[in-house]
Order: sequence, then structure tokens, then C-alpha cells
Amino acid sequence: MNPDEFRRAGHAVIDWIADYWATLEHRPVTPADPPGTVASALPATPPTAGEPVGAVLADLDAIVVPGLTHWQHPSFFGYFPANTSGPSLLGDLVSSGLGVQGMLWTTSPACTELETVMMDWLAELLDLPPRFRSTGSGGGVIQDSASSATLVATLAALHRASGGRWRAAGIDRRYRAYTSVHGHSSIEKAARIAGLGSDGVRPIEADPETQALRPAALRAAIEADLAAGEIPAIVVATIGTTSTTAVDPLPEIGAICAEYGIWLHVDAAYAGAAAVCPELRWSHAGLEYADSYCFDPHKWLLTGFDCDAFWVADRGELIEALTVLPEFLRNAASESGAVIDYRDWQVPLGRRFRALKLWFVLRWYGAEGLRAHVRSGVALAARFADRLRADDRFELAAAHPFSLVCFRLRADDDTNAELLARVNGTGRVHLTHTRVAGRYTLRLAVGSPQTAERHVDEAWDLLAAAAGDLLTP
Amino acid sequence: MNPDEFRRAGHAVIDWIADYWATLEHRPVTPADPPGTVASALPATPPTAGEPVGAVLADLDAIVVPGLTHWQHPSFFGYFPANTSGPSLLGDLVSSGLGVQGMLWTTSPACTELETVMMDWLAELLDLPPRFRSTGSGGGVIQDSASSATLVATLAALHRASGGRWRAAGIDRRYRAYTSVHGHSSIEKAARIAGLGSDGVRPIEADPETQALRPAALRAAIEADLAAGEIPAIVVATIGTTSTTAVDPLPEIGAICAEYGIWLHVDAAYAGAAAVCPELRWSHAGLEYADSYCFDPHKWLLTGFDCDAFWVADRGELIEALTVLPEFLRNAASESGAVIDYRDWQVPLGRRFRALKLWFVLRWYGAEGLRAHVRSGVALAARFADRLRADDRFELAAAHPFSLVCFRLRADDDTNAELLARVNGTGRVHLTHTRVAGRYTLRLAVGSPQTAERHVDEAWDLLAAAAGDLLTP
Repeated sequence: MNPDEFRRAGHAVIDWIADYWATLEHRPVTPADPPGTVASALPATPPTAGEPVGAVLADLDAIVVPGLTHWQHPSFFGYFPANTSGPSLLGDLVSSGLGVQGMLWTTSPACTELETVMMDWLAELLDLPPRFRSTGSGGGVIQDSASSATLVATLAALHRASGGRWRAAGIDRRYRAYTSVHGHSSIEKAARIAGLGSDGVRPIEADPETQALRPAALRAAIEADLAAGEIPAIVVATIGTTSTTAVDPLPEIGAICAEYGIWLHVDAAYAGAAAVCPELRWSHAGLEYADSYCFDPHKWLLTGFDCDAFWVADRGELIEALTVLPEFLRNAASESGAVIDYRDWQVPLGRRFRALKLWFVLRWYGAEGLRAHVRSGVALAARFADRLRADDRFELAAAHPFSLVCFRLRADDDTNAELLARVNGTGRVHLTHTRVAGRYTLRLAVGSPQTAERHVDEAWDLLAAAAGDLLTP
Repeated sequence: MNPDEFRRAGHAVIDWIADYWATLEHRPVTPADPPGTVASALPATPPTAGEPVGAVLADLDAIVVPGLTHWQHPSFFGYFPANTSGPSLLGDLVSSGLGVQGMLWTTSPACTELETVMMDWLAELLDLPPRFRSTGSGGGVIQDSASSATLVATLAALHRASGGRWRAAGIDRRYRAYTSVHGHSSIEKAARIAGLGSDGVRPIEADPETQALRPAALRAAIEADLAAGEIPAIVVATIGTTSTTAVDPLPEIGAICAEYGIWLHVDAAYAGAAAVCPELRWSHAGLEYADSYCFDPHKWLLTGFDCDAFWVADRGELIEALTVLPEFLRNAASESGAVIDYRDWQVPLGRRFRALKLWFVLRWYGAEGLRAHVRSGVALAARFADRLRADDRFELAAAHPFSLVCFRLRADDDTNAELLARVNGTGRVHLTHTRVAGRYTLRLAVGSPQTAERHVDEAWDLLAAAAGDLLTP
């Protein structure tokens, strides 16, 4: 495809996307077709001769789009948001067009340096502790996801806990990781990948009211493990748990980690974005204790997947844990010690120029635009919660400090599961579920920049109507 | 940014990229500025108010582009190629625009089903063994990189070697991984991440002529470990090693793995693309022994980073090793067993819709177009090698079965390092180096779809001229 062919086809694809967004609200949020529908509409083998872009776009409309769950739909309220925005698309498009690979500073200096500066910009926006900045002992790096950030933090923690022996000698099975019973599944997955096994993770009791980790229970678990000859290596605390956006008490947890010399990783995958607003920074109190921290601009900060922002307080420890230097990567800049080689901050070797999408987003919106986006989500969630509070048939299952509301009918689990199935079955909205204190609970998460009051109100109307049907004998 | 703002800015960015490609040949391949040049040209903090896209594009030209190593430049001959193409950009742009997250089948069915079909298409194109296809016991998945594929293969191998105990109980430090001394650094990194430690990797001797792993040495290492009570868990064989594109003898290695019940992972990150051409499939002989296999469409198959194609022969083993199921991800489709949830095939939870770029590439080029691209690279490398052979001052350091040529001046290491520095210093070409049998060796890797005979000829002319200067007393 030569540059002129690309120009023509590119304009067509840009128009296709603009039209998709402009019509998104009128589409069903989720598909209704059974498994295999998309696959069976596609040829079993690739074409022998090339085809024009128009043929692919026609199949995109006919085959692919009808099989999508539309995550950018203003009435998508499932999971956590994975929102994106026009400037994010543009930045990522430039990244695709440049096609540079930033595994080393020398393999594209601007790719590394823009990333370092963008991570410092984000640290400034969230008011992170100074030691996380590149001007201090630490620094930030873009990971694909919070799962990978947790894995990388776990590896650095094991390296530290072993006194540096882990790198060559491998893991000691006595190492232990700690997280709340509401910690994300990626914590168990990271422990398993790192060789601790799921048995190596201690699930720590949470407060039944706040769903936040109980520091006394953490201390007790650490003491018990120490007494049994185990070695506490890492605590993962959460700001904004996946089920209910509970906030673990970092000041108390941090003090315990400091006392016992345990690595503290803070997972704020979803709720970290809230810290762009000064009035929501209470959630990050105690972060000065953390050895590492991450949040996902791809969840609630208008930057398309994948973009997890991960910081460490001591970059030297992380690099020492992960570096491998074969001859074919040796170069003068790396050996000078004056540059960052981000390959040593992550699992893969290769790196896409992901800082560009952050750059476009942060400049298009500015700090004020980002704050407005977060505040809008918080206000819409509060509006929905107000509707719930005013209806005796419903109850809130947890506090809603951010943009997630957890709730249920005052009825049994089966009735609540049926409620979710009915409102989702309309195709007008999409919500998901969790369990809180063992009970089936619906979740409504706001995050799309297109979501307005009318979308939240419609969700409420659908829920209230379905509740009426369900509760009528 | 509303859809109309996006449409206007999107056209501008498409034009920017088309212009970049059209002028790429006339730019220096690499930047010359010292570390910190880009960072110091950027503000230390993000803007408070938003800025227009035009301001960002102006800084892209003024600050970022001068700091890039241009990987898509027709005279970029470094490392392995990380080539991309117009259709790849368009497919990835659609992915950004849709912004769906395919962690589960249910979170966007078309995202999963198109990926399964694309992996089957690739399996057909490369003529992979039937058991790697989704219609057999196995199946394919897109990973970010071959590093992650090796890690995932290692984890599945450990799970198998432990009889299923690894998942809960963690790693047994007696497990061992085997690869040639020319195996990629990601194999050591994967072993380290998995908790084996770098000591858990046995580097196996290679044939000094072919740089291919010596099966007898592999067998001896396995026997020695077994005798010492160690447990051989995985062998990683390479089709197209990073230094010289050596091909490990899979038929013999596979037979040994079968005899001892060891997982065989085949890393064809770069050279796998060659198998689209029937005349190059000799390199894949013996692949029927493999438990897993990967290659990178983002290296030599015109698909932008990141896109590693990874297959397993038994998907059940992989899923069992990696699955974690929290309540918030439970859904009827997963529980039916009728769908694929790709989150269980990889390290992260979240997933971008990367199959779209493969779909656009495979349809735009067709099988014949992809073969023509690979054949062009092989022919250009052969053309360059012919120039070398005709000049007594130079020698080939290895065979060149694909599109990489390894060579040196008949002179000492310092002279060869100086030769590389001089030709790269012109800014007209970019080559990198390795060591073969301990000796400093230059590498010229062809891969960009824009590279033509004149670019390879210019590289030769620059090398020949620099050699003349260096060898003149």
C-alpha cells in the first residue's frame, strides 16, 4: 500500500470511526447471537490474492460489528470502564504510523524520553510522592495492564526479599504475598506466574462494612507466617477494589510493611484516575509508603487500551531484577548509564510508542478537562445512587466514592440475577455483577465520556420497571 | 472531542502519516542528539487547559521526529525488522475506534472469534501441524511478543511437569529449561520470571559451523540433570536465531523431547514468516513434535507491533495453568464451555482487538502478496551477500537462509566496530552487530516493504568505502 493509497483508505477509515461514534448510542450495547456466529460467517482460509480495503470495511459492518459488545457505548456500565477518546486514537495512530520500537533508548530516543516525561506529567497530575518521579530515585513506565504491573512488582519484591539471590537461584517457596480478600484476581495470577503458587497468597480479611483490608488481620498473618518460617515478600493494597471500589487503609498498611521490611505495591487500576481531582486525593493518603504503584489511564482517563501507568520508588531494584543483556543489544548509550532502557522495566523485550497517546490526551484535555471527566462520572454515579435510595425496593451494597454503584433488590440472589438478565436483555444497557458479603450484587460503572444524565436515568428506569415485574406476585 | 472534531483532526493525522512515509527515505535513519534532548524540549508539567491537535502535531515535527530511529526507513537494517504496513495501521485504527476489550468471549464475541479465525488462517498460511488449529486439540492466540509467548509456554510446561501441582503449590526449583547458547535472552528472562532463576536454564552447545543446537549435547545435559535429580521441564528450540538466523534441528530435538516427556517450545519469532513460502518450509521440518510455537507477524509479516502469533497443541493444559475465575468475571457463555476466553491464554487480563490488523493485512496482501514480501527480503539479502563474496576484504560469518546477512571485515574486532560506527555515523543506513564464535560481526537485516535494491546497494557502497578508509595504512 503506497502513501497515496493509504491516504485515501485512511480518510475512509477515519470517517467510518466518526460515523460509528455518532451512531453508537442507537445500537444495542451487546450482541444477542450465539457462539460461533462471527466465525461461521468468515472464510476458513485466507485469500490467495489481495482484496481492496472497501471489501474489508463491508465485512466489518456486516460480520464484526454485529458481534461486538460496545464498550464505548454511553450505556455500557459493565466491569470497569475501558474508555478511550479522539485524541487517544490520534496519538496511537501516529504511533502505528511511525512504527518505532523502543526497547532501548538507542532504538528510538524520543520514544523513551517522551514516556519518561509523560509519566512525570501523570505523577504531577495525581500528586504522587516525589520519589516516584524520574527526578528522584524512581520513575514511571507504561505497562500493558495492571496485571503486568502487579507481576513486575512481585518480581522486584522477590528479588529484594532474597537479598538479590532470586535472579540466579530462583524462587524460595517460603515467600508469601498478602492482599485483601477483595484484591484483584491478577494478584493470584502474578503469584502463580512467579512460582509462588496460589497457596503463596494470603487472603486477608476485610472489614464487612467498608470492604477494606483490616490492618490487624494483615499483621496477624505476617506474624503467623514469620513464626512458621515463611518469608513475607509483598503486600498488594488496593485503591478502588474491583467489586466495590473499597479503599484499603494505606497509612496503617504502609506502617506495617515498613516495620517488617515488606514491599508494598498499590493497585489503583481504576480509581487512580480520581487523584487528578484534589477533592478525591484522600483515597491516596499513605501512598508515600509504597514501593510501587499503578493505575490505568485506559480505564478512566480517556486513553485507549493498553496503557497502565506504573511507578517504582527505586528504579535500580526493578532494573536489577529484570535486566538481561545479550550481545546484540549492547550499545554505547546503555553502557554510559545516562539513559533509560525500558525493556528492563517490563516482561516483554519489544515496546510500542504508547506515550504518544498519553501526550495527545493530556494536551487535548489539559488538567482541567481530565478533572471534568472524572467529576462527571462521580456525579452521574451519585445521581443513580440517589434514585436507588429513594426506592425502598432497592438497597446500596457499598459506598460509592468514585463512579461505581453496587446495589441489589431487597430480594434473594436468584431474583437479583434475573433482574440483571432482564435489563441486559433489553440491549439498551449493560451492567455486570459481583458478590458482596456472599450476596449477588449488581454493579453500575460510569466511565464513557459520552455518558450523560439521560443514559443513567434510562438505566434506572429499566431497572425500576424490571423490579416491578419481578416483585409482582 | 466530538465525532466531527475527530473527523477533521483524523484526516490531518492520516495526511501527516502519508507524508511521513513519502519522505522517509530522505531522512537520516537515526538521530544524532545526546540523551535528554527530547525531554529537555518538553514542558516539565502538563497543561492546565486543553490545546488543539495542531499544536501537538507541530511539536511532533519539531521535537519528537528528530529524536526517532526510523524503523520503517528503507535503509534501516538493524536488529530484526519490525515492519508495518498501511493495512495494518488501518486495522489497528479500527481497533482503537471500537475500543472493545476482549478478555472474555462475552465481553466482545467478535473480538475473540475473529482472532481464532485469523490464527487458523495463519496456521494455514504457514502450513502448521493440524493439532495447532482450533479445529484440533490446540489453537492460537495473539501475544504481545515472543518474550511473552516463551513465558506462557514455560508456565504451561511447569504445570505439566508438576502433574498439575505447580498452580497451587508453586515451583519446584529442580525444574530445568534447555536452549541453545544462541537462544534468545527472553528464554532466560522467562525462566527468571517463572522462578527458575537463570541457573535453571541450561545453555546447550551449538555446532560451530551452523550455530544450530547440537542434539547430542542436549541429550547429555538432560541425562546429567536426571542423574542429579533435576527435572527437565522445557526445551526451547529456535527457527532463526537472533544472532545469525540459525535453525535448530527440530526432528532430532523433538524426538528427544518425546522420549523424555519434555515440553518443546519452538521460537520462530523472526523466521516463522518465511514459512508462508513453500520453498522455505524446510526450516519448519519437525514442528509436529512441538507443544507450542510462535512467530511475530510484527517482525517480517507487515503487521505493526505488537502482534506475536502463539499456538499450543493442547489448549486445555494452557488454560488450566493460567485460569483464575473471580465472581465479577463469571458469565453464562464461559460456563457453557462453548467459547474461548483468551484471558486464560496470556499474562494480562485485558485484551485489545489485535486480530483486526491481521485481518486487514491478510486480506489486503493475500497469500501471494505476503509471499512476494518475504521473497523480496530473501533476494535482497542474497544480493548483498553476493557483493560481499566478491570482495576479498570481507567474509560472511554465517549462512543467510532468510533476510539477514552476518559479515565482517577480515580484520580485528576493533576495526569491525569502527566500520559499523562509521557507516551508521553517515545517517544513511543503520546496521547492528553481534558476536559469532566470539568475534565481532555486523548484521544487515532486510525487512521493510520499502527497501529496494538501491538501498541495499547504498549500504554496500558505504561499507566498501569505509572499509577502504579503514584498511588504508
